[in-house]
Amino acid sequence: MANEPLILVSNDDGITAPGIKVLVECVKKLGKVVVVAPDSPQSGMGHAITINKPLRLVEVDLFGEEVLAYQCSGTPADCVKLAVDKVLHRQPDLLVSGINHGSNSSINILYSGTMSAAMEGAIEGMKAVGFSLMDYSYEADFTMAAHVVDVVAAAVLKNGLPADTLLNVNIPKVDELKGIKVCRQARAKWKEDFDERIDPYKRKYYWLTGKFVQMDHGEDTDEWALGHGSASVVPVQFDLTAHHAMGSINSWDLNEKI
Amino acid sequence: MANEPLILVSNDDGITAPGIKVLVECVKKLGKVVVVAPDSPQSGMGHAITINKPLRLVEVDLFGEEVLAYQCSGTPADCVKLAVDKVLHRQPDLLVSGINHGSNSSINILYSGTMSAAMEGAIEGMKAVGFSLMDYSYEADFTMAAHVVDVVAAAVLKNGLPADTLLNVNIPKVDELKGIKVCRQARAKWKEDFDERIDPYKRKYYWLTGKFVQMDHGEDTDEWALGHGSASVVPVQFDLTAHHAMGSINSWDLNEKI
Repeated sequence: MANEPLILVSNDDGITAPGIKVLVECVKKLGKVVVVAPDSPQSGMGHAITINKPLRLVEVDLFGEEVLAYQCSGTPADCVKLAVDKVLHRQPDLLVSGINHGSNSSINILYSGTMSAAMEGAIEGMKAVGFSLMDYSYEADFTMAAHVVDVVAAAVLKNGLPADTLLNVNIPKVDELKGIKVCRQARAKWKEDFDERIDPYKRKYYWLTGKFVQMDHGEDTDEWALGHGSASVVPVQFDLTAHHAMGSINSWDLNEKI
Repeated sequence: MANEPLILVSNDDGITAPGIKVLVECVKKLGKVVVVAPDSPQSGMGHAITINKPLRLVEVDLFGEEVLAYQCSGTPADCVKLAVDKVLHRQPDLLVSGINHGSNSSINILYSGTMSAAMEGAIEGMKAVGFSLMDYSYEADFTMAAHVVDVVAAAVLKNGLPADTLLNVNIPKVDELKGIKVCRQARAKWKEDFDERIDPYKRKYYWLTGKFVQMDHGEDTDEWALGHGSASVVPVQFDLTAHHAMGSINSWDLNEKI
């Protein structure tokens, strides 16, 4: 079909992860699907790009005949950049990233490769959505998550998105979904607790572990929605300016010291 | 001195880069300095964290006796997390990151390891500032940049910063600085132009290159300030919620489809 929507799919768990397979199946119903995803897991890569080594891009047959798919040796952001420059011949109508194995709610968005693929798409002017299921298991049940993808992806294709805005969609691990709630990012952080070990050569090494600390008691946050059985939809921007802080910093009169 | 400020220093160009040496010299005048920085260049790492392999942390003597310094095998965000959990015994009074060899203005903040170290500090509740000089050369002249560090770091120690806010400071490559301007992040992007090559085994590979595209004609942006000879100071937040977009997305009635 000449006018069918063109849909770019990526993720950060790697092109062989179960979550991206579910996502491809969902959006195949909406248009022509092209996949460009990492050839290995890239969780926690944030918005990293690869500048000190070259990238590989290899066509693979993983999603059936109708789906053009490439694995890339880079980060999720690299995948989207390569898709734009080397794979797609026009701007896609939608970019979806995921379905991530594990939550990307609240502060986790900053560390998330799934969301960096979506954000890179939004920077390129695409309508972009990242989907994450709150279940790290590779055997996770994606039935409910697939239903949320169906509803949100169709709504974004139909309604568009405000300029320079993407969506961060998280789906709780529940048997029955209460609903889909538009939320703000909860204020939270990870309290580090590195696991210190000694290697066979008597040298210390550290594994990053930590505890998620919620500092936000609002009922309008993604954490609240997820904790109460709803999927969360957070509209996200990549203008990081803290506009509300400009007045106080202007009062410092920095120029008097120059 | 028991009550002197405790200052954490990191960067993304690596602990041996000239820029971090200049930064340490600047802030040594303000208090007790502790350095935790990557053992190799980490440019473009965005807010990546290391979860699939363990980290090393090794004490080094690079900045003289008074400065406790560690090199870390991880990303800039890892460095700050390790500093908090394993090196520092109290919350530092200031975190400074850089001085980066190259600009982190506008959209570059998203890809920047320098700024991710500062942002990780801000998430931890520290007063945090990232400094970048618009000169990629290792032989860059940091005289002007050091002056800006002196002024801004002292002002942050004196005035504090609004909650959950950090500063992105960029310094132009000019002989005489016009001033220091508090700005918003300019709307811009990189237009990808991957350099496609063939390896000795006849397989394609790609180097990421691109062209910076300014899409913002405002005179209140970091790009404008830098282009007119001023240093730019952008207050930055890590709540990425696009609050202005919530109304339109709420109008979609997503729950009717669940």
